[in-house]
Formats: sequence, structure tokens, C-alpha cells
Amino acid sequence: MMITALAGGVGGAKFLLGLSRVLPPSDITVIGNTGDDIELYGLHICPDLDTIAYTLGGRANPDTGWGLAGESWICLQTLRDYGSNPWFQLGDRDLAAHLWRTQLLKEGRTLTEITSLICNALGVKIRLLPMTDSYVPTRVVTKTGERLHIQEYLVLKQSQPIVREIEYSNIAEARAADAVLQAISRADMIVICPSNPFISIGPILAVPGIQRAIAQSLARVVAISPIIAGQALKGPAAKMLQELGFGVSAAAVARYYQDLADVFVLDWKDKDLCSEIETLGMRPVLAHTIMNTIEDKIAVARKVLEIA
Amino acid sequence: MMITALAGGVGGAKFLLGLSRVLPPSDITVIGNTGDDIELYGLHICPDLDTIAYTLGGRANPDTGWGLAGESWICLQTLRDYGSNPWFQLGDRDLAAHLWRTQLLKEGRTLTEITSLICNALGVKIRLLPMTDSYVPTRVVTKTGERLHIQEYLVLKQSQPIVREIEYSNIAEARAADAVLQAISRADMIVICPSNPFISIGPILAVPGIQRAIAQSLARVVAISPIIAGQALKGPAAKMLQELGFGVSAAAVARYYQDLADVFVLDWKDKDLCSEIETLGMRPVLAHTIMNTIEDKIAVARKVLEIA
Repeated sequence: MMITALAGGVGGAKFLLGLSRVLPPSDITVIGNTGDDIELYGLHICPDLDTIAYTLGGRANPDTGWGLAGESWICLQTLRDYGSNPWFQLGDRDLAAHLWRTQLLKEGRTLTEITSLICNALGVKIRLLPMTDSYVPTRVVTKTGERLHIQEYLVLKQSQPIVREIEYSNIAEARAADAVLQAISRADMIVICPSNPFISIGPILAVPGIQRAIAQSLARVVAISPIIAGQALKGPAAKMLQELGFGVSAAAVARYYQDLADVFVLDWKDKDLCSEIETLGMRPVLAHTIMNTIEDKIAVARKVLEIA
Repeated sequence: MMITALAGGVGGAKFLLGLSRVLPPSDITVIGNTGDDIELYGLHICPDLDTIAYTLGGRANPDTGWGLAGESWICLQTLRDYGSNPWFQLGDRDLAAHLWRTQLLKEGRTLTEITSLICNALGVKIRLLPMTDSYVPTRVVTKTGERLHIQEYLVLKQSQPIVREIEYSNIAEARAADAVLQAISRADMIVICPSNPFISIGPILAVPGIQRAIAQSLARVVAISPIIAGQALKGPAAKMLQELGFGVSAAAVARYYQDLADVFVLDWKDKDLCSEIETLGMRPVLAHTIMNTIEDKIAVARKVLEIA
């Protein structure tokens, strides 16, 4: 049973942690979002990829979901002492991944190779593939016309500005790595993790070739709602759905995936939406999708595997 | 009494610390070597400039002369855990300067501007100018024909390979900043610090325009020997003098500066060399040039000021 999952950061990592406990890791490939990559201080930073690697490697900070447990902030504090404004959180241990990645990129290695090296070093046994080796930063166009890098929007602006549009820059020239397209075509099941549709899954789907590969695949495509009872568990997904005019509900997410997904997993709290999901041509599957404990995560993974 | 000093790292910083105690800091301009700058992990690192800034800002590690006091190495240890080979020492606090500098370079600021910002943040009151804003890495050609970046030679290879030649790469296309040439032409005295002639002072003199500006200046030019009784106090200066065929003595250093310097300061231990210095057309001045304590440093600075 080969599973290929499309994932953003924290929400995707939670589901994948559960999945990695119920399937052999060699059966799991993750296509990770790199639309939230950012170049800062000369470093190439991949927050979503690192969140997945840190989580599956057992190193993630359990309180935040991102960053490393037991992290220290000596470099960042020194930057502050210099009068710099380090709005992006870079811990001393986290920095090491960025330094190593940047050095290897300078030496001509691809992001796909480097991600594999980082995963190996962290003991991550599933295969994590960046959606593309190109730099394709997602940008948020705000109501006032600002174009913000997604990290500026999320971290610096605390997701406050009203969103008018999401742009996947340079995406038309980007290429999915061969391994990405193979992982889709060889999958028995494709899972769209409970990540933000616009800034986590949207960038992956925007990489030329990926949507077509999913459409051509014989695998069942299962999407898991990141919205429960009209609220996002984390991040600005609900706010973005609202501001982009989709309406805030699991059904709105289902509409976003309508042409792609066969099955839509939504929370029991949203069971009234099942008929609407069916109307969209998808089979609704109810589950307890709030994943606080490892048991919660395993339960959602089992539910998804039952679909096959 | 305006003094402009040419300086490398640790040796130069010791003298400058003494000088800054006997002259108002506004009277001191330092032209710092950037030939030992290195780009690593995507970061622009300026070891000699930082050594001067850290020393004059009172932050230097007293045991090594370079790096910061009370430094921690969490990021570097994590890099090692990844299986990377971080041969260059980057402490967590030191990293902050490199991150900030690299970010500002990406934003289009010059190294001259950035060095000034770093000095201000560290409370350094003398003016520290990079010899050029261009990247002009010094390379060591070894007897076996390897071409090593000077930091690879010094740190990775521990100065072990036999030196055949020193190259100042890209130097013909480099420009001295206007402030550098002005600091030379306006000086009442130009001091060549007791730094390595080949890898600290040589790169500065190789920047187009600097030697001519010194020659045209009316200031007295005073060079301080980094060699005492045939030995370098620190680093590979003696080894390089030997391997490049200059012979290892303060007199060999004096010959190197023969066309440039009017006065040559050498240690009392080398008083027998005074007549040889005079033969070279320079006035020898004897001093106790081993600068362990702050009193030693101040004494050398006073001796140099007496020359004027």
C-alpha cells in the first residue's frame, strides 16, 4: 500500500506522524510544500520541510509544532543586540540546518538531495520530497496592494492584513522533480493532508505537472479537512477562506479540491455537511480530526487507510 | 594628530587597542584587511574586520584573540551532528554578525557601511574601513600546486602546506573606497601594524590606488615588525617568510616595506638589526613589542606616537 501525501507544515506533520506509526515508512512518500521557503540572511530556509523532518525525526518542539525541542536563541538575541530586527525565528540548532542546506546548494546539490541528507541525519525514514527544486515563494497580495512573502505575512504581520489574492511566484517556470511525479503515479492512495489549501497545498498543486499527474493516477485521492466547525485548528486558513470569498467551512475546502479528490475526510462536528460533500461528487468520511495526542494522530491515519 | 593604520587581525588589534587608549578615537582610522573574508554557508564572513571590532569593542575572547568572549557553539555542534564538517569556527554570537552583514549586503549596503554599523553596535569609536568593498580573497598556492583560500590554509590545513606563492585574487578589479584614500591622504602618520606582511598587509597594499596614495602622502610611514628574534608571535608569518625566500627576521620584514616606510619599529631583542634597517633607508626605532598586557599595548602606542 504505497501512500503519497501532499503536506504543508504543522498540520500535515501531525497526520504524517500518525501515518508513520501504522504503515512501514518505506510505503510513505511526502511531497512537501516549498512555497513557504524564504531566503533570509543569505540562508535558504525551508520551514515546512523542516517542520516535517523535525516532527518525524522526533525533534520538534511539542509546544509550537515548529522548531526544535530544547532550542536556544543566542544568535537571535545577539542579532537583536546589534539593532537588527530578526522577525523570523531562527534558533541556534535550527540555524544549522539552514547553514548546511545553503552550503550544499552553493556546491550545486539539489534541494531534493539535501532534504534527503537532512532526513537521514535526523533518522526520518519516510521519503520527503520537495515539490520542486526551484525557488517559488508564495506571496500574499493584501487589500491595500502590498505583496508580502508568505513568511512576512504569517510571521512579521501575524496574518493580520486582509488577503486579496495568493500568488505562486515563478511557478510557471518551476518543474516537479521526476521523483515527485513518480511518487504520484505509483501511489495506491494520494492523501491531501489537513494543511492550509491556499498556502500549503495550493503551491504544490500549482507546480506544472503535479495536478495532471494526480488526475491521471489510478490512486484514490483523499483530502482531509483542515477546517473543523468553521475554524482552523492553526494558522490563517479560516481567515483566508473568508477573505478570498470561499466561505469558512469544511465544505468550502471540499469545493477547492472538488476536481481532484474522490474522498473528503471531515470532522464529526461537521457531519451535517456530508450531503453537501456528496453533491460535490466526493465521498464524505467522518473522523475525529483534532490530533492532539499521538493516539489521535494514529486514529486519523487508520481511518484514512480504511478508505482503501 | 590623525593616524591611519593598516591592520590585519589579532596582532593589529592588539596595537590598536593600545593606540585607542592614548589618542582620541576620532583621530584613528583603521584600514582593515578583507583579503581573509570568506563566503561559507552563504554567509559573508570578515574575520580580520571582526577581530578588530570585537577587540576594540571589548568583546574579544582574551584567550584566543579572535572570536567573542563567553561564546557558545550550539549551532556548530548541531552542524557536526548532521555529519557536516564545519572546519571554520562559527560561534552562536559570532554568527549574528555574519547573518546581519550578509542580509545588509543582499539589501545593497556596502561593506564599508555595514562595518560602520557593526562598529557602532559594539561601541567601537575609532573608524574601521574595509580596504575595499569588493570580494578579493587571498589564496595560498602550495608547493604541491594547490590553491587554497587563505582561511582553508590557516584553519583547515593549520598552515601546514609549504607556501610557494600568495595570490590576491580579483585585486586588479577592486577599488579602494574613497574614504580609504582620504584617510591616507589626510593622515599625519600612517602605521603599518605588526600584522603578517603577506596575508594581512599585502592584500591592503595590493588594492589599486592604496600604495600610490601612501607614497604621495606627506605623512610619516611607520611599520611595526611582527617578527621578534626570528619568530612570529602568532600565525605563520615566520614560516611564510622562510618558504617565500625572504629569510626569517625583522630585517626581512623591513625589506618588504622598504619602498613604503620611513620608520621601522623593531623589538629590543633585535637591536643588532638596526644598522641593517638604516642601510635600507629606514630609521630604526626600538621598542618592547610583545603586547600581552594592556600596559604593553599602550607602551608600544606611545613609542609610535613619539616618532611624530
